[in-house]
Amino acid sequence: MAQPRPDPVADADAATCTQARAMLAAARHAALAWLDAETGTPGISRIALGLDPAGVPVTLISALAPHVAGLRAQPMAAVMVGEPGARGDPLTHPRLMLRVRAEFVAPADPGRPALRDRWLADHPKAKLYVDFADFAFVRLHPVSGLWNGGFARAAQLTAADLAGVDPAGQGAPP
Amino acid sequence: MAQPRPDPVADADAATCTQARAMLAAARHAALAWLDAETGTPGISRIALGLDPAGVPVTLISALAPHVAGLRAQPMAAVMVGEPGARGDPLTHPRLMLRVRAEFVAPADPGRPALRDRWLADHPKAKLYVDFADFAFVRLHPVSGLWNGGFARAAQLTAADLAGVDPAGQGAPP
Repeated sequence: MAQPRPDPVADADAATCTQARAMLAAARHAALAWLDAETGTPGISRIALGLDPAGVPVTLISALAPHVAGLRAQPMAAVMVGEPGARGDPLTHPRLMLRVRAEFVAPADPGRPALRDRWLADHPKAKLYVDFADFAFVRLHPVSGLWNGGFARAAQLTAADLAGVDPAGQGAPP
Repeated sequence: MAQPRPDPVADADAATCTQARAMLAAARHAALAWLDAETGTPGISRIALGLDPAGVPVTLISALAPHVAGLRAQPMAAVMVGEPGARGDPLTHPRLMLRVRAEFVAPADPGRPALRDRWLADHPKAKLYVDFADFAFVRLHPVSGLWNGGFARAAQLTAADLAGVDPAGQGAPP
């Protein structure tokens, strides 16, 4: 027989919000869930992750990546950051799940040079391929978030809670 | 101007197949991409991962988890295993992406006791909650796979390549 329990997902308090923003600022990679345009079923990929100069999460992807066609057809996607440590139950390690809207950055976008500089500061090895014609930056605008700190420790975040993240990983929402 | 390149995704050779199966046998957690039944957009979650006695990937999930309703409405999902190391470019670390079909295991399923024993051997801390009425095992039957060993090192796997994984992580497909 099912034993009903209280819903553990409350709105994020200031401390959780700060922790979620710090996780986003620290992340250099993430898991991306995207919709396969052909089958209508979810796909998953590892992506590089950074922040643009406005503090919006961003990735740099090759046109060969399977998620590119998916994101072009269905820009709504989901991102997870926060690695489990080597020890203990992986489900007790904090992670942050975001619902995002993908926006491809055109080569001629006036914001691209500053975004490129910011990316290379955080991902120096990307200088080998950042200017290849088949690579593109994609902003991943947060729509909402779910922070999970372990069993029965979860909190919901709004787009405002996740706006304008400081690359240094400090500070509350503006 | 786009510079066309050859598609780097070939069928997996025996060595890649063995490595993919070993990654699956070693994984104790994974990222899961699922379809949100309400919005039709992808969600993402961290899940515990193991193998059932037949070598099929399996997870144990709480009815409170956001992906439960999603998997019940749309059993096609995707799983990623393989953690980046602490050093170097995260995208050069091998990972395995699976397209899977989720199958909920009923409490009265004749296979559940052996599955439960296998799970607790690999996830001893789960004994605290494995028998809660709102937890359920879900088999994640591989439909296909993509192994990615870093830039331009990718291979496709079939369901047969991923069938009957040895929990000890050894051996080629049966």
